Amino acid sequence: MAVFQLTILGINSAVPAHGRHPTAQIFQVGEQLIMIDCGEGAQAQIQKYHIRKSKISHILISHLHGDHIFGLIGLLSSYNLEGRKQDLDIYGPEGLEEIIRIQLQYNGGDFCYPVRFHILDTGRNYTLFENKKFSIQTIPLDHRIPTAGFLIKEKRLPRNMIKEKLVEFDIPYQIIPSIKAGEDYKTPNGKIIANDKLTIAPPKPRVYAYCSDTRYTERIIPIIKGADLLYHESTYCEDYKEQAVISMHSTAIEAAKMAKKAQVGQLILGHYSSRYKTTEQFEIEAQSVFPNSIAGMEGGTYEVPRLRSEN
Amino acid sequence: MAVFQLTILGINSAVPAHGRHPTAQIFQVGEQLIMIDCGEGAQAQIQKYHIRKSKISHILISHLHGDHIFGLIGLLSSYNLEGRKQDLDIYGPEGLEEIIRIQLQYNGGDFCYPVRFHILDTGRNYTLFENKKFSIQTIPLDHRIPTAGFLIKEKRLPRNMIKEKLVEFDIPYQIIPSIKAGEDYKTPNGKIIANDKLTIAPPKPRVYAYCSDTRYTERIIPIIKGADLLYHESTYCEDYKEQAVISMHSTAIEAAKMAKKAQVGQLILGHYSSRYKTTEQFEIEAQSVFPNSIAGMEGGTYEVPRLRSEN
Repeated sequence: MAVFQLTILGINSAVPAHGRHPTAQIFQVGEQLIMIDCGEGAQAQIQKYHIRKSKISHILISHLHGDHIFGLIGLLSSYNLEGRKQDLDIYGPEGLEEIIRIQLQYNGGDFCYPVRFHILDTGRNYTLFENKKFSIQTIPLDHRIPTAGFLIKEKRLPRNMIKEKLVEFDIPYQIIPSIKAGEDYKTPNGKIIANDKLTIAPPKPRVYAYCSDTRYTERIIPIIKGADLLYHESTYCEDYKEQAVISMHSTAIEAAKMAKKAQVGQLILGHYSSRYKTTEQFEIEAQSVFPNSIAGMEGGTYEVPRLRSEN
Repeated sequence: MAVFQLTILGINSAVPAHGRHPTAQIFQVGEQLIMIDCGEGAQAQIQKYHIRKSKISHILISHLHGDHIFGLIGLLSSYNLEGRKQDLDIYGPEGLEEIIRIQLQYNGGDFCYPVRFHILDTGRNYTLFENKKFSIQTIPLDHRIPTAGFLIKEKRLPRNMIKEKLVEFDIPYQIIPSIKAGEDYKTPNGKIIANDKLTIAPPKPRVYAYCSDTRYTERIIPIIKGADLLYHESTYCEDYKEQAVISMHSTAIEAAKMAKKAQVGQLILGHYSSRYKTTEQFEIEAQSVFPNSIAGMEGGTYEVPRLRSEN
């Protein structure tokens, strides 16, 4: 069964504090790793949590605040030192490539592996990438500078043939793809066998939604609706909710409200302000609105199980 | 007694490995802190080792390889977030200011505290800064890109008056500064009292020499000669000495040879290649040439005691 899971490398906002690092995540889809944001120290966290960094094929950068990007040049340079050969696709707001290239230039070199930078349009929801297994979409967020979240969606698999029915109805092999795609079967004597007699529904495609940094904004609800896992920033608890407004961040309560309205499966909180030494309060407040809320922690791995569709 | 001590924050070369971080050091002279190089994760190390980072008045960057600078933007941005007010002087090769400013610009701001960038001439030995207590000089090193080491030298203090002699010879107060400066005293009846009967020698000015990154180069011996403490890079042991030649780094043996020829007090080794899981071999090899050699370690503090001059 293909893995679909989040590993958190950095869960703090702004600066490293209380042993917590700035934002960085690894999302695994099958054998492929997608990095989401890359705060300072991300490459050391990658080592600490035994992430196979050569498997990272995509790096998604939500915005250009330092706590989301200052670890990127270190990671990219280390790939150079280690002689990476694989392609790497990097998505981020305009300016990211310039920031990276100027550092590489004075560092005495260029990339020794194929790197493609893609400029994000942070203002709309669109597909950045897709292959047979999954797609990555943007989520337009609302922060002090242009910022996008990301939606990682599994592709729907074909329906599964019930093998006994192949025998029972003597179905020719060349017709199987159309039946797996949902069509009914017409026997040689003209009888129609309904598709749901012949197949069972494939697993429900899983969805991960990453929303950081942003103030509470309901316009993203249609995009993230029904996601299995939602990471939504919660920089503050209720005691500093005015600060959340000023800095265009969210509170734990707002993150939970978003999770509830978008009917997601589970909410992971994070991007904690350094004002908070511990994170229990975030969880308590969020759970008061949306019970399946967890205060995310570094090194935490959150797997989305595969569930059968109802039909 | 004024503190004159080195604290090592990062001791690895190239990439973080084996729990070791890229190069960063704090040198304390009295109440003032001088940062030397600033590899990724330096600000987290500053927290870990309880360095009062507001006391950092100077940052010295030896060269623009990533393992010496990737932590700088994080530290400078955190100063912004924390509302630093104090001046900061940053010394580094050409390009450093451009690298920092472009990141700040996309990060959405500028410095909120006075920062002065100074471009290093890495090709010669000259004084970067001096006040009444100490001076900072460059050490021209020999590496793949322009690189300077740094020499931090205490100023020589005036000689100390022997209080009993003030009474014995009834010396007028206005003459004391000239005696402390080394002059003899002429009594009202014309008798000459030699200065060394009236004063004792001040402490010997202490000197710290930082040499990283560099291949072994004897041209720096006259500059670092007699330093109390020498940090000299030793990226490799003898088993990879050919690699040291190729990459323009030094071996532990070469660092020790430099310490011996320059007649320093103590040698601290560092900038270890990630090939080495532990650092004992560096110490063993260096001590075979220069017994007072230590394999530097993160969090290690190396104080230079104040000793009286012989005269």
